[in-house]
Formats: sequence, C-alpha cells, structure tokens
Amino acid sequence: MNYTKCWLDYKPIPENLRRPCYYEPVLLASGRVAETAAEEYCISMSEMLDEPVEMRRGEPVDEPAVYLEVEEELQTAETDAALDRQTFVIRGEEDNIIITGKSEEALLQGVFAFTRMVYLGEIDEKLPFFCTPSTPLRMMDHWDDMDGSIERGYSGRSFFYDDYEMMYNERIEMYARLMASIGTNAITINNVNVHEKETFLITDVYLQQVKQYAELFARYGIRLYTSVNFAAPMQLGGLTVCDPLDPDVVAWWEKTVKHVYEVIPEFGGFLVKADSEGRPGPFTYGRTHADGANMLARALAPYGGTLVWRCFVYNCGQDWRDRQTDRARAAYDHFMELDGKFDDNVILQIKNGPMDFQVREPVSPLFGGLKKTNMMLEVQIAQEYTGQQIDLCYLIPMWKEVLAFDIGGDGTAVSHVVCGIAGVINTGDDENWTGNDLAAANLYGFGRLAMDQTLSAEQIANEWSRLSLSREDDVTDTVVPMLCGSWATYEKYNAPLGIGWMVTPHTHYGPDIDGYEYDRWGTYHRADLHGIGVDRTGVGTGYVEQYNEPWRSRYADQATCPEELLLFFHYIPYTYELKTGKTLIQHIYDTHFEGVEEVEAMKKQWEGLEGKISERSFACVKDRFARQLENAKEWRDRVNTYFYRKSGIDDEKGRTIYK
Amino acid sequence: MNYTKCWLDYKPIPENLRRPCYYEPVLLASGRVAETAAEEYCISMSEMLDEPVEMRRGEPVDEPAVYLEVEEELQTAETDAALDRQTFVIRGEEDNIIITGKSEEALLQGVFAFTRMVYLGEIDEKLPFFCTPSTPLRMMDHWDDMDGSIERGYSGRSFFYDDYEMMYNERIEMYARLMASIGTNAITINNVNVHEKETFLITDVYLQQVKQYAELFARYGIRLYTSVNFAAPMQLGGLTVCDPLDPDVVAWWEKTVKHVYEVIPEFGGFLVKADSEGRPGPFTYGRTHADGANMLARALAPYGGTLVWRCFVYNCGQDWRDRQTDRARAAYDHFMELDGKFDDNVILQIKNGPMDFQVREPVSPLFGGLKKTNMMLEVQIAQEYTGQQIDLCYLIPMWKEVLAFDIGGDGTAVSHVVCGIAGVINTGDDENWTGNDLAAANLYGFGRLAMDQTLSAEQIANEWSRLSLSREDDVTDTVVPMLCGSWATYEKYNAPLGIGWMVTPHTHYGPDIDGYEYDRWGTYHRADLHGIGVDRTGVGTGYVEQYNEPWRSRYADQATCPEELLLFFHYIPYTYELKTGKTLIQHIYDTHFEGVEEVEAMKKQWEGLEGKISERSFACVKDRFARQLENAKEWRDRVNTYFYRKSGIDDEKGRTIYK
Repeated sequence: MNYTKCWLDYKPIPENLRRPCYYEPVLLASGRVAETAAEEYCISMSEMLDEPVEMRRGEPVDEPAVYLEVEEELQTAETDAALDRQTFVIRGEEDNIIITGKSEEALLQGVFAFTRMVYLGEIDEKLPFFCTPSTPLRMMDHWDDMDGSIERGYSGRSFFYDDYEMMYNERIEMYARLMASIGTNAITINNVNVHEKETFLITDVYLQQVKQYAELFARYGIRLYTSVNFAAPMQLGGLTVCDPLDPDVVAWWEKTVKHVYEVIPEFGGFLVKADSEGRPGPFTYGRTHADGANMLARALAPYGGTLVWRCFVYNCGQDWRDRQTDRARAAYDHFMELDGKFDDNVILQIKNGPMDFQVREPVSPLFGGLKKTNMMLEVQIAQEYTGQQIDLCYLIPMWKEVLAFDIGGDGTAVSHVVCGIAGVINTGDDENWTGNDLAAANLYGFGRLAMDQTLSAEQIANEWSRLSLSREDDVTDTVVPMLCGSWATYEKYNAPLGIGWMVTPHTHYGPDIDGYEYDRWGTYHRADLHGIGVDRTGVGTGYVEQYNEPWRSRYADQATCPEELLLFFHYIPYTYELKTGKTLIQHIYDTHFEGVEEVEAMKKQWEGLEGKISERSFACVKDRFARQLENAKEWRDRVNTYFYRKSGIDDEKGRTIYK
Repeated sequence: MNYTKCWLDYKPIPENLRRPCYYEPVLLASGRVAETAAEEYCISMSEMLDEPVEMRRGEPVDEPAVYLEVEEELQTAETDAALDRQTFVIRGEEDNIIITGKSEEALLQGVFAFTRMVYLGEIDEKLPFFCTPSTPLRMMDHWDDMDGSIERGYSGRSFFYDDYEMMYNERIEMYARLMASIGTNAITINNVNVHEKETFLITDVYLQQVKQYAELFARYGIRLYTSVNFAAPMQLGGLTVCDPLDPDVVAWWEKTVKHVYEVIPEFGGFLVKADSEGRPGPFTYGRTHADGANMLARALAPYGGTLVWRCFVYNCGQDWRDRQTDRARAAYDHFMELDGKFDDNVILQIKNGPMDFQVREPVSPLFGGLKKTNMMLEVQIAQEYTGQQIDLCYLIPMWKEVLAFDIGGDGTAVSHVVCGIAGVINTGDDENWTGNDLAAANLYGFGRLAMDQTLSAEQIANEWSRLSLSREDDVTDTVVPMLCGSWATYEKYNAPLGIGWMVTPHTHYGPDIDGYEYDRWGTYHRADLHGIGVDRTGVGTGYVEQYNEPWRSRYADQATCPEELLLFFHYIPYTYELKTGKTLIQHIYDTHFEGVEEVEAMKKQWEGLEGKISERSFACVKDRFARQLENAKEWRDRVNTYFYRKSGIDDEKGRTIYK
C-alpha cells in the first residue's frame, strides 16, 4: 500500500523552533481518546524533533514539559453544551506548555492544533490559544459504494470497500488520523444512494466490520454514521411496506437500531436520502418527511443517536417544456411547512445552494426559512461540477461566502443557524488521496473552516501549503494566490453568471452547453437568439419569494441583483449592459478568454516550482494543469461559439471565435 | 427456450391451394444440402398440409409428385459463374412439379421459394419460375460479442454467445433455417470490433465450437466468416508487430488460416475492420489497406477463402473547430488511390452512405469511383439510427434507392458494380428475434432483396406480412402501407434534409440536437441564427467532387440538389424557399408536426388489428408504437424549439412550439 500522509507529513523543524519542553510530554489524563492524543503527540513531535519522543504518565515532572490534560470544569464562555465540551486551551506556563481539553476529544484536538502550530512556527505568536469549534457537528460524507466504486469520486477507488467487503488496514488508520487532525467528529461511511448490499451494513452481515471502523474512529473522537435505505424493512425485514407510521415498520427499526447499538455503543446515527432521485421514502405512503425522519430518530434516541435527513428532494422527471416547475424551489417547498415538526435529534442536511453544487449558486433560502428545526450545511468537497480534481478549484472562498451570508436579512448568517457542516469527501485510493495534490487543500480547508470560521481562505491555504508542500516562502507565495484565485478562474470559463449546468451529462466534466437543456433534470438555461437566463422573479417561477428581505427584492430586480447571479434570477438580452459597461455577450466572451489565460498563467507558475517541492507532487499537479488547460480551452471555445451562433454578435476585440 | 418461427411459421393452407403432387415429394439428388432441401420441404409442407409428408428417394413415381433435383448442366443465360451455380427453376410438368437447382444450394433455395409460393397461393401465377440471385454474396454481419452483448443490438442478448462460450441449441438451428430461407449464403458470426476473447475464435480455443456452427450453416448452404483482429499476430502469436509485410506476420497468418481450414474445410473467410475507430491496422507500419487486405487474402486464397475489408475508415478524433476535414470524404480519400491493387479474393465492404447509416444520406461516391476492385454494399438492418426497433422504419425503400442509384452517372447503378450485399443483422434472443415484430420485415426484406432486386418494397412487405402476420387481406392492406410509409415518417420527425446526427450521443436513440455538434466524430450540422447545413461543394469541403457527373454538378448547386439532401451539401438560410414554396424553417416545423401525426395514425391503424393477428404480435407492436409516439413527440418538440430559439421565426400555422 502506497499513500502519502498529506498535511501530517511532518519533517524535522529548525533548532530555533524547538523548545526543551517539547521533548518531555506528560499525559495527565486517561481514557481511549486521551491515549490517542498522547500517541499523536509522540508521532508528530518525534518527526519534528527527529528523535523518539516518549510520553510520561500520571505525574508532573521537574524538567520543562508539555502537559496533556483533561479538565471537565474548564471555564469557557460557551453556552452551547456540545461546543463547550469541545473546547481546549493551549497555554504557556513558565517553561511548560499545557494543553487542556474540556473532554478527551477536545484534548486530542488541542494536540493536533499544538503540533501544527509548532511546525508552522506559530507558538510564540498564538499562545495562549483558546479554541471552541465554530460548529459542533463536523461530518464527512462518503459516497463510497461497497463494490469499491465511489459515486462522483475522482481519486481512484474506495479505500473502505472492495468487492462488497470492508477493508481494514494501515491506510484506514492513516485516514482516521487525517480526519481527526482537521477536526472531523463524524463520518458517514457509505453513499446516500444505498444499494442492495449496502442496506445490510446495519445487520450482522457487516456489523462486525463496521464495528472495527467505529472503534478506530472512536479512538480519534469520531462517530461513525451509515446511510440507510428507507426501504430496509422491506428488503431486509420481509415487510410489505416501509410506511413510517406502520407499527411493524417502527418495530423493525427499533429492533434493528437496538442491535446496532449492542454491537457498536458509540454508533453515531443515520444519514437518509429519501424520496429523491428514485430513492424510497415516506411519500409512497402519503407521509411527510417529518414522519419519516422522526420514526428513525425515535429508534435512535434511546442511544443518543442522531438522524440526518437530506433536503435534496426535487422532481427529477421534469418536462423541459414546463416553465413553471422550478427545481430551485423544491427544498423550500417541501420542508418549510414541516418547520417545528422534527424531533430534537433530527438534523436536516441542506445543500449550500438550491440546485446542486454548481460553481455559482445563491444560498439556499431554506436556511433563512426554517426557525424551529435543526439544520446542517452540506457542501461538496469532491469537485463534481468544479473540475473533478483535474481542474484547480479551491472552494474555501465559496464556503466562506455561504457561511457568512446574511440569510436572515437581519444579520443572521448561515453560520448562526446551522449546528453542523457536512462535506461530501473527495478522497479515494490514489496515492495522494485526492487525485490532484492541490485538491487536498479543499479537504484540509473544509475541516479547518468547520472548526474555526474566523480563518480566512488565505490563512487556510497558507497553512495547508506549508504543511503539505513546503515551508519555504517562495512556494507559499506561489501556491496561496493560485489557490485563492482558482474558483474565480474556474467560474470564468464555465457557465456564465450563475446559470450553471452547461456540463456534459452524466459525467459532469467538460462543456455541453445544451447537454441538460432538453432533459428531465430541471436544469435549464433557456438561451435563444435574444438572450439567456431563467426568470425566477414573481412573474417567473416565484423562487425569489422564498428569500427574506432584502434579498427577495434585491434578487427580483435586475438592477440590484448581484451580477454573478444575474442569469440565475433573470432572462437577460445579450445586449444588456452590465455594471462594468460591457454587454452580456461581451462579458461572456471576455471571461472565457480570461479564464484560459489565467489557467495558462497558473500552469506556468506551477512549473516554476520544480525542485522546490516533492517530485511526486510537482509532476502530479503539472499533469493536472495540462489537462485543465485543455478543458478550459474547450469550455472557452464551445461557450463562445455557442453564443456567437445564437446571437450573431462579434467579439469586440476580434479574438478567435470559431463559427 | 422460447422463440417464434417468424416467416417460416406455416399454417395449414386451404383446400383450393393444395395439389396432389405436394403430398409426394421425391428427392432425385444426394448430398448434405440436398438432404436439407428435402427436410425443409417436408417440414414446411407437413405444416401447410396438416399431415406428415415424407420424402421418397432415388426414383420417379407414378403418382403426381414434386421432384427435387440438381442438374449441373441446367441451361441458363447467366454469365457470372458464381451466380449461374445458384440458379434454380421451378416448373410444372403435367401434374408434377419439378424443382431443379444447378447446385444443391440452388435446390435448397428452390424449395424455400416453392414452399413460400405455395403458402402465398402464387403457384399458378408464377410457374414456371426461374431464379438467378441478383448478387452472388448475401451476407449477414453479426455485431455480437462473446460476452453475450450485441453492439447496436435492440432485440436482447446474443443467441450465439454467453459468457465467452458459443451456445449450440435448437434456436441456432432455427436461426440457420431462417437465414437460408431468405437466401443468405454467408454469415459473419462476430462483431467487427474484435475484442480480446473474440481474437481467439480462429484458434483451438474456440475452433471446435466454431466448427459446429460452420457445419450447421454448411448444411444450409451458408458459409461462416469471422471478424478478425488485425493485431492477432501480436496478441496470439507473441510477435512484436502486425505489419502486413513482415515475413513473420505473413507466416503466422498462413499457419493460422491453414489450421482453420484443416478443422473447417467449408470456412468462408474473414471480415476486417482496420485502422478505424481505434482498431489496429496497416497504417501503424506505413502500409496501405491494400497491403493489409492482400496479406490476409493470400493466406485465405489456397482454400478458396474470401477476405472482406471494410471501408469505414475515418478520423474519429476530429476537432469540431476544424471545418476543412470532412468525414464524408474519408472512404473515397482512403481507398480510391488503391483501386486495382487488391487481390481477386478481396472484397471491399462499403457502407451505403459516406457517413454512417443515417436516416438519409447520399450514396457513397466510392461505388462510382472504384473500377478495378471488388465491392460489396453494407447496410444496417439493425436500426441503430433509425429507431432501434422501437420506432417502425421499414428500410427496403432506402436500400432499393441505393441499389438503383445511377452512381456511374451513365446508367451504371450501384447494383451493377457490387458482387455482394452485407447487412448488419438486427436479431437477438428476444422471443420474436427482432424486438419489434415489424422489424423482422427488414430482416426478411434484406434477404429477399439481395436475392431478387426486381422485387418492389411493397411486394416484399406484402410477402412478409402474409407469411408472418396473417394471410388475410385486411391485415395486409393495413400493414403494407404502414411499412412502406414508415421510413418517410421517421425521416420527417428526425434531423431535417439529410443533415443527420441530431441523436443522443452513444445510445443514438432520441434527439439531442447539439449532441454531436462539438464532439470529435466529424458529424456537425453547423446551425446558427441564420441557417444550417454543411457546405460540401467545391468552396466548402469539396466532397461533391468525389461524384461522377451529373451528380457532382447537381449536388453542388442548391437549385438542382435533391432537397432531401439539401443540408448535407449546403448551408441554407432558414428563410430559403424550397421547391414546395415553403421556407426551410417552415419545412422543419411542418415535417416535425406531420411526423408525429403520422405516427399517431399508424398507432391507431395498428390498434385496429386486434384479434386479427396473434395476441403476442399485436401487443408487442402496440407497445412499440406507444414508445415511438413518445419518441416522435420528443423529436418534434426538441427540433422545433431548437430552431425556434435559433431563428426566432414563428410557425406560420401557430402550432405549439415550446419557447
């Protein structure tokens, strides 16, 4: 097995960064996760100090030392009990350093934070360091299937499954370390589209294998979740229905969950995709999503389990001729009327935008609608629509925009209303885990951002680059701007101004302008010879009305609608003048030429890093940039030709547009 | 195993069609195929006469009798030796009927012709009946793969292969009977895209299984061919090249072919797809197609084998931006310079049109170019682009147009220059063999047309309908016009005026107007806001210059170009006035509305046949018509909307065009 250690690949640090206390760690706590904290300290510090570091236990020592302790009575300002428990402090005291967690899990996070600060040379600057995570639930969702494939995976095959068996090996352990090191505390191990074999994950067919994962994860403070098949009582239990109000169904789930917890006491809960894209669900029986979710939640509640229910519910059999139905409305239309009807241990998992992880979408209005329901944000670390880990697209700036977005219209940001963040993970069994080495910045960044939303996208990029590529400034100075500008670049050569979906059907890589235009997925751009865009105002589909003010009015008016979302909300003539003074058509041409130029520039910048980073990383990303450039050119030319053929309007600058 | 007998499903005939002699057949010939002729006589006549009919042998009898004989000295007017040998005569002599073949194979054809005439009540009208087939080689090409799949198969799985084994069973025998009954005398048993396992068909791995087929086929006068992998010497022989001029390669093929003929003396030969769509070929070594074909032909020649070499060679990696390269030119450009350089036992297999089995194409100019090369016509019975045996599209009218086309410009029709016809077969393991019962008319018709090009499409449809569905006139009166009009209907709701290719990529069913427009396959329509079409005149790609006069000039001039091919040869504005007085855009709208109306009418007509034909046939085709109607509507609406959005021109008649 051959795999990298990503951002945990510590190298020896310079003398000036070393302190005597680092060599003498003392664990003053006990327990499974505290032991992991001690172990992680020793692994990382041994690498950094280039000599074996061993943990002492139980008693303070005379020499300068680093103390690892758990103090349940630690004073914090946090009022959220779940968050409070996750608080840790790192402080200096004379020549000692004390890492104090309010729980064992918090201590482990403290150790990871500490070793990272040591490696990055931040100890002097940052101590004392207080940390309460920004959000209590930080979840990775795997879309791995048990045949070993990964739905929307761009980094090889699953490292969890092969041919319907769960693998257990050193890589899984490395994986758990990587996840814990960025603050992950929940992992859903299988695809939300639960196929036949995966339905058995919560039965004795696989429970012992699941238990092995759950125990490993638990040692790292991570709870294991499974995606479940809502129709499991029929497939596994021989029942004729899976009606959530049917007593036999309720009893079946109760019995099944009870057994899961007997085998795996630290089991986290279930993730459910129901009544969506062909999955079974409560609609079949005239029941609501609340009926469905609560039934499962009640089976989990006695054991402290959580039920995560996805809001990605829409009509995937739309007639393209139908201009009234609007997929963007679907989540809000389905779930708003259920506000307040979900049990306390239910969390609704809501995608960042109303469509599906496009390069640019408005923030889902559901975050601003639901008031009495637990919500978590779902983003896609896997770059399904954003370059598939071939093209560089650092997504932290996008996620930060979403989290900071004033969805309440009254200063209430998305980050204020969610109790968790889930990321569809971008890993696979490629040596570098993420296909493109640089795509690991999204994985790292997702975790870091979920822990600490005050971090800027630049800070995260900087940390990641120094941990993963090189601590030298010239590398950081090249890589950080490259990462931070890459989303904007990707957006430039893709579908313009929020319209989305001009991708190759099924694969979702590369352009096909009309690829979804006459299909059943509710994803249309409506381009004709005069203009392009979807009218989602009150006279259109009415989608804008799902927003709180001022967004409702701002989006409804072409003049105030943010231009990066203009075509999402409005049908706009090609000759419409944007705020830049450019016409829409000229904007399309310009951005597509610019996008390619920017990729060319990034490619060149990367090539300047030869010899400054590992050969493997260098070659991997060099190859990806070459492919990205081809992709960007294809996008540029197809989009420009498409709109030239539609509009007949020449590029003002006379550049090559193929006729 | 459950399968129908198609057109060989004889029922008892009325008394007035019976003659005493039918009950007393006498075989005056001997040999393997003569025995088959006797057997076929008995099977068919037993069914028609509703009592067992047994064959006598060796001596004339006193009672009225049907004599089956072979007379090698039979006088005919035929000058082509191969054809001459295939001649048969059926004549009455007093109360006897005498079926005389110039060979055993001809006798077998005489028996099939005789039993068909008896069933159809044509004996009085047609005797004496002389038949020399229209073309000596009448080949079925299977695109079956050994995993059991069929490339472009729309009737279930292969009945030859399952999981890399060849099956032998009663269905294979029925298949051989069906093929022989329509005059087939060559069958290629595997896909022209020869994958790894299929490469072994000509080795001991499979030869005994192939032999079993070959012997069965031989009993029916049919020779078995295999598609071969040009790189077989590398894959199987461990050679480092497959260069046709390399002595080791030559020796490998000689040895391999020798062994094939040792095992299967009646082996027909090879079919080769080389240097096309990723297949290996002589180009790799700087050799020509003649070098490649002749090398194989010379290995086959000592045993009387034939080498069939496909001309479907083109650049399948074209850049859509490139307007100079024209896939339509490819076959001519590749093969014309090789005219006269192919050995006598090489036949070039040329698709009917220059592209790939579209609903409308001009006839391939290669037929008019090659003068010193054996050629055969390749058509596709499988309805890859013509409705996939869901939509009804009776193709005999198309094939008749092709065969009758004056490709020489001097009265030399395609039928005059080809020595054979190959059809890519449309069968599979569906109960009815062809998915849609009505699609069997194409299979039957292909065979009949290859035997006798004087038959009209209506005659063939009539024969097939009466043999397969019902001998009642009201059924025939419904089905024959339906079949004969179905190609025109299909064309109406598909891509307009010869432009082709507006199909869903990969599957090739259903519309996707831009599906291939920006792809690498050389299949573009070039529609913009002003018009649509490809300029293939001298100022365009120059394709027209591959034709003999008068076609070159006729096609080059918009005014004289046949309108059904207008967009194939010219870029035409939407406002261009056609000979009907309609604008191009109005023609597009009108034909697409009409196409749907015609499908609705056919569907209704078919539903009127309930109770008049077998329930199975009725239900099968009823279901297909329902699906065809959906498909036709989708074509209508997508095409109309696409062109409305491009042109902005309203339908004159104000019908619904979705915006």
